[in-house]
Amino acid sequence: MRWPKEVELKEVGPRDGLQNEPGWVNTEHKVAWINMLSNTGIKEIEYSSFVHPKWIPALKDAREVGRQIKRNPNVTYSALVPNQKGLEHALEAGIDRASVFMSATETHNLKNINKSIDETLPIMKQVIQDAKAANKKVTAYVSTVFDCPFEGKTDVNQVLKVAEALFEYGADDISLGDTIGSAVPNQIEEVLEVVNQYFANKDIIMHFHDTRGMAIANIVTSMNYGMTRFDTSIGGLGGCPYAPGAAGNVATNDVLYLMNGLGIETNIDEEKLLKAAFYIQNKLNKKLPSRSLMYELSQMSEGIDADVLEQKRRRKRDMMYDFLKYQYDIFKKMAQ
Amino acid sequence: MRWPKEVELKEVGPRDGLQNEPGWVNTEHKVAWINMLSNTGIKEIEYSSFVHPKWIPALKDAREVGRQIKRNPNVTYSALVPNQKGLEHALEAGIDRASVFMSATETHNLKNINKSIDETLPIMKQVIQDAKAANKKVTAYVSTVFDCPFEGKTDVNQVLKVAEALFEYGADDISLGDTIGSAVPNQIEEVLEVVNQYFANKDIIMHFHDTRGMAIANIVTSMNYGMTRFDTSIGGLGGCPYAPGAAGNVATNDVLYLMNGLGIETNIDEEKLLKAAFYIQNKLNKKLPSRSLMYELSQMSEGIDADVLEQKRRRKRDMMYDFLKYQYDIFKKMAQ
Repeated sequence: MRWPKEVELKEVGPRDGLQNEPGWVNTEHKVAWINMLSNTGIKEIEYSSFVHPKWIPALKDAREVGRQIKRNPNVTYSALVPNQKGLEHALEAGIDRASVFMSATETHNLKNINKSIDETLPIMKQVIQDAKAANKKVTAYVSTVFDCPFEGKTDVNQVLKVAEALFEYGADDISLGDTIGSAVPNQIEEVLEVVNQYFANKDIIMHFHDTRGMAIANIVTSMNYGMTRFDTSIGGLGGCPYAPGAAGNVATNDVLYLMNGLGIETNIDEEKLLKAAFYIQNKLNKKLPSRSLMYELSQMSEGIDADVLEQKRRRKRDMMYDFLKYQYDIFKKMAQ
Repeated sequence: MRWPKEVELKEVGPRDGLQNEPGWVNTEHKVAWINMLSNTGIKEIEYSSFVHPKWIPALKDAREVGRQIKRNPNVTYSALVPNQKGLEHALEAGIDRASVFMSATETHNLKNINKSIDETLPIMKQVIQDAKAANKKVTAYVSTVFDCPFEGKTDVNQVLKVAEALFEYGADDISLGDTIGSAVPNQIEEVLEVVNQYFANKDIIMHFHDTRGMAIANIVTSMNYGMTRFDTSIGGLGGCPYAPGAAGNVATNDVLYLMNGLGIETNIDEEKLLKAAFYIQNKLNKKLPSRSLMYELSQMSEGIDADVLEQKRRRKRDMMYDFLKYQYDIFKKMAQ
């Protein structure tokens, strides 16, 4: 197997992660959390989305978040922008990079953006050119690269067509997304075989969801095809809009465990990452799906120093919870 | 990547899975569940353990289970045996194959079996020879093949030494275990590079735990080294004794998803497997960690036909649970 010396993880938890979480995280907590992430060594953070709040209410405070976060000069701050209006807001709030997005398949594009692919491309062109005119970098997300929830297996020519247009409009790099987390390693091989030929000198990012637990294997396969940039989400935050309760983006923690084990440099501080995961887990008041995170948390007794206080508060709540659970268990026995 | 045409999954959920679950499953439910597993197409099931009940109380009914399960002539039924006494009980209860076990590292062997490796080998020899004399097949599990929770990275020579002895005593195959679920793909490469040279014509099985989410990637890597036999646990049942709350054996459901995606034959019926997973999940009254299982369950509205009744009962309980959760949420808000 070919292993790279170094990989770059882009943290998409504050955007792709929170976007799919049912819980609301207060702006001040989002800001504190993104500031924690900014100090982990992560080089790029997608901090929010400037899609209309009607579509993504969890990120309706994108402008406030953008204004309030403390910028680390070593971090690239990006945000999702759907159109010119979104780009304007993003530029006001402050971004280093704009992330545009569309699908490789017609039906998913139509359901997600409410436009056909041919209607979407001119908008992409305009937004990319405006962002470049404002001296910003642009990443273009292409969704449903491997499978489409409506159309089944995606024709790789469709991926090439869309990606070629986006590169032509000026996108600096393209992120290929397994949007529904259904791909297995031979699909990665098939697509990257063609992509590597077609876009030999272009920057390609891989974006995996862990819906069926295949993401780490897909990352390993991608590295074997020369890929070194991955979108990841702290704690595995997110989930899939088509599958409530299912796993989300591949977890930054699991990918970091993999890379550390393989001796591949990420420049990320494991403990700082753990603290940031613990922070957002508390704010969302739910167990995040990352296996490595669950393992680490199960190993802790007194938690991480700065969070002991918060832990104590939680323990108090947990006691009350246990009491209610106890009542519930009695009820359950009676019901049987 | 090299993909095999066919792989064989051995179901270890009733043994390695249940052994690490805190909940008790009634004998009749175990039997019904193993009978369901017997009809999925799985070719081997490790149905219980004949280790002294003091050590594994969850499997104290091994003899009853062995006597009561309905044997499918296409399935090999195996059980864990620690010594001659255990083998006697297993032979009485009925086994096609005996599974013996020891560790590649001294400290783990000592903590797990209470004997040094040199003290353990003669016992292994005796049990293997007795099992062979009774016309049974023998699998030898070797634990801590990649990492040891006490000694760190395992010396591959230690693995070779133990495995060589076990093959010499007459073991038909050896299962190499990542006991603490810590290995990453390059460790698999390093060990299999040597193992393939050293035991060129021997049967090797790979046994992965998904504690940090690496198991599927490790299976993919193993297949690239010619491995075609894997131990898996339905729903990801199990967990790790060193990490309460963490993931267990790699989930049969996730491995099946992988193999189906890769077009590799397993002969396992996905829907029957799902029903068996759903059954044991209900009996344990907890969400099993398999990502594919969680995804499938999140997709169901009315559940699987035969289980609709059980689901309705659960829904009734869930309503009561929601009510208590509601009280708890009010309390939580007050406490903030």
